[in-house]
Amino acid sequence: MNKFDIDNLKYLFEPKSIAVIGASRDPKAWGHVILKNLIDYGFEGRIYPVNPKTESLLGLKCYPDIRAISEDVDLAIIVVPAKMVPIVMEACVEKGVKVAVIITAGFSETGPEGEKLEKKVLEIARKGGIRIVGPNCMGFFVAKSKLNAAFTAIAPKPGKIAFISQSGAFAGTMMYWATMKDIGFSAAISVGNQADLELSDYLMYLADDETTRVTIAYIEGVKDGRKFMKVLEYYTSKKPLIVMKLGRTSSGARAATSHTAAVAGRDELYDVVFKKYGVIRVYEFDDMFNIALAFANLPLPKGDRVGVISAGGGWCVEASDALESLGLKLPSLPEHVVKEMDKILPPFWNRRNPMDLVATVDPEPFKTAVELLMRDENFDILMLLGYGNFGRISNLPFLIPKEDAIAKEIADLVKKYKKPLVVVNVFGKEFSNVKVFEENGIPVYLSIQKAAKVVKALADYAHYLNSLEEMEQT
Amino acid sequence: MNKFDIDNLKYLFEPKSIAVIGASRDPKAWGHVILKNLIDYGFEGRIYPVNPKTESLLGLKCYPDIRAISEDVDLAIIVVPAKMVPIVMEACVEKGVKVAVIITAGFSETGPEGEKLEKKVLEIARKGGIRIVGPNCMGFFVAKSKLNAAFTAIAPKPGKIAFISQSGAFAGTMMYWATMKDIGFSAAISVGNQADLELSDYLMYLADDETTRVTIAYIEGVKDGRKFMKVLEYYTSKKPLIVMKLGRTSSGARAATSHTAAVAGRDELYDVVFKKYGVIRVYEFDDMFNIALAFANLPLPKGDRVGVISAGGGWCVEASDALESLGLKLPSLPEHVVKEMDKILPPFWNRRNPMDLVATVDPEPFKTAVELLMRDENFDILMLLGYGNFGRISNLPFLIPKEDAIAKEIADLVKKYKKPLVVVNVFGKEFSNVKVFEENGIPVYLSIQKAAKVVKALADYAHYLNSLEEMEQT
Repeated sequence: MNKFDIDNLKYLFEPKSIAVIGASRDPKAWGHVILKNLIDYGFEGRIYPVNPKTESLLGLKCYPDIRAISEDVDLAIIVVPAKMVPIVMEACVEKGVKVAVIITAGFSETGPEGEKLEKKVLEIARKGGIRIVGPNCMGFFVAKSKLNAAFTAIAPKPGKIAFISQSGAFAGTMMYWATMKDIGFSAAISVGNQADLELSDYLMYLADDETTRVTIAYIEGVKDGRKFMKVLEYYTSKKPLIVMKLGRTSSGARAATSHTAAVAGRDELYDVVFKKYGVIRVYEFDDMFNIALAFANLPLPKGDRVGVISAGGGWCVEASDALESLGLKLPSLPEHVVKEMDKILPPFWNRRNPMDLVATVDPEPFKTAVELLMRDENFDILMLLGYGNFGRISNLPFLIPKEDAIAKEIADLVKKYKKPLVVVNVFGKEFSNVKVFEENGIPVYLSIQKAAKVVKALADYAHYLNSLEEMEQT
Repeated sequence: MNKFDIDNLKYLFEPKSIAVIGASRDPKAWGHVILKNLIDYGFEGRIYPVNPKTESLLGLKCYPDIRAISEDVDLAIIVVPAKMVPIVMEACVEKGVKVAVIITAGFSETGPEGEKLEKKVLEIARKGGIRIVGPNCMGFFVAKSKLNAAFTAIAPKPGKIAFISQSGAFAGTMMYWATMKDIGFSAAISVGNQADLELSDYLMYLADDETTRVTIAYIEGVKDGRKFMKVLEYYTSKKPLIVMKLGRTSSGARAATSHTAAVAGRDELYDVVFKKYGVIRVYEFDDMFNIALAFANLPLPKGDRVGVISAGGGWCVEASDALESLGLKLPSLPEHVVKEMDKILPPFWNRRNPMDLVATVDPEPFKTAVELLMRDENFDILMLLGYGNFGRISNLPFLIPKEDAIAKEIADLVKKYKKPLVVVNVFGKEFSNVKVFEENGIPVYLSIQKAAKVVKALADYAHYLNSLEEMEQT
């Protein structure tokens, strides 16, 4: 088998039929939760529970053995105890299953015994032409197939972000968290021990998946470095990749070894590779989603020159610090912008970038400022700070509808001028203008520092693509 | 006047009577908002609105001039237009006012004209023995005096954290934000241009204020460096100070100059001074509050050795990375802890620090692990990750009451053993065990990286105090 072969992945992402081997009647068992999630999310293909001890489960006919199913089975989800997995896999081979998702834990992550068992399962799979997800994983989700085979009690929303996690607990927690935050996914996969299919394989698939605009990967280590680099080169030429790579310190690396049997490797090497292939590395989990939301929603910038519009002077200082310390540029304010704003602002406004609109209660000048910078070719990305909160903070409720209406008009300017804009609002969704921005595709961040990291990621990836293009033209 | 003299500050923090000069009937005017906030928050001293155009305001008798008030006035809050401030100040001098809070903007922050006006006001104050807060500020709040003279529409809660801000917009926004997050304050002051009273003065007062356990300062620059250092030495020997110092990059420093007329100064100097006096410097606004909440609630650690207890392996890796990269220590797990946990965990648990309790659904082993590390003198600070979420994430609702009950028992262990514990839960208050922890004095953080910064701050400040003590004994 060619190591870049991912033909079978179409049966993982778009199966026509799924068997759940180890499906259970006990609502606490994972074999129940997964079956229920599959049904509840509305998977349109066929679902076959497999359990020799029962006739039917959740309204579906139950089979004693996968071989007893008369139709074809593309995908098997396996939740039987570890020792039974080899027997079940033999049955899957006989049945002609294309992909097996092995949820069961107790393999290489537990020591030499488990390692042996994992090897055995892999041998059966290789001989029988089955690809394996896991073992020791927390399931997966594919929006385009209405396929929710994950553990979490609340179902993910469809969206444009793919999520790959080497940690099962992290995957479950994050999917729950993101769903609570109203973030949608095109796909999510808990990769587990990666006995067979690994990060690189999923990335190869996602590179050409039309429903995915950006991928987040939470990884501890990579199995095949050469393959990983080849895949990155292909993937990042198509869409952005955000990576949270753990095990970067020595004790972190030790902790990783006992977790998913991953070899964390020398962290500096990863840094070099990530830079080379335009991968965005993050260190805090919320940055993953902050940056992903920007790529999923905003146009890419042309460069790294930022124009900042603020409702207060303190934020101008904070934004300058945050942007400059990340190496982003703050061009000075062009004369024509100063002239226009002079007409509508009090005489003592700062006439600089970042623009301090001096606690203007009226939201109109913010829109004027945004449009002036949108039109001006000295700016590639805009940042809007402290907009639209006077109504609530200063108890001037009559302002709120106007703040919301202008937020919509500002969002429309992004579509009109195809230039990215990020908004900072410490209050988040509790303020209605934030909802207006988000519903109109403008991501809103809780702090200037977090937004600055997003701006940096947008600029860096745009720079990477531009360099590729320039190289191709020479 | 001795430059360390803060005698008059007692009239700012505990006035018996307050005049609001420029009080207004118009609900949009700040002279209305402040008067209303004073009354609504239940200030128990006397309140005198001053406005020559009306007889009464919000149920209080209104005076045409501060001199028309027959009783003593300790504190004047001034909201008249900038040009009228000198006349009003002359009247305050005649009346024997001790402190004037000048809310009005349009002074040194606007240029040479405003600078002249500010100088004039200061001269009047100096001659008349009045201390000035501001000008160009957003008011203040003192919990122990039930004194809310701030602009925000929602009133701060009483608490143990003092907050000093050089940016008015930031002060207003943060007070509103913190109140929404249920964070309480002992005092909050928007210092404005610091024409007279400055950061150092407020810190001198707060050092001995019994209601304050920790102070947060958001600053752009300091006026008198020598005085600042003297004050820091005194203040930080008493309680921790958390500083967000802006203007650290050159464009940030430029933005600061046009904001509050502050000279940001060479940032490296601040770093040296902060280190010397055990000041905790932060770079993101939520870190200010995260760290302050820990100091306000937890016992100080004896050292920097961290024990981590986790519900998932990925978090162990993340925690190792986060703690080790901040220079914190992760001692190995003592044999007796391994033995005890072997009795209650599956055989393949990791037997290491960070401890991976291998997705234990039962919350009991978490309490056992916490108590074992609390008792063990190899650990100074504990960190608990991913606790108590199985009930919700995996849809096992019968677990939730037990998760909450054990959370309470874990919180009690902190009191019993007087060793700090920080908890990480990405879901925040939406999960009930988080509320249980917080109601019992255990701060809960949204990410491992944020919690690691808190642990670092606790350890650093404890180290600073220990060094002082050792020096005194030699």
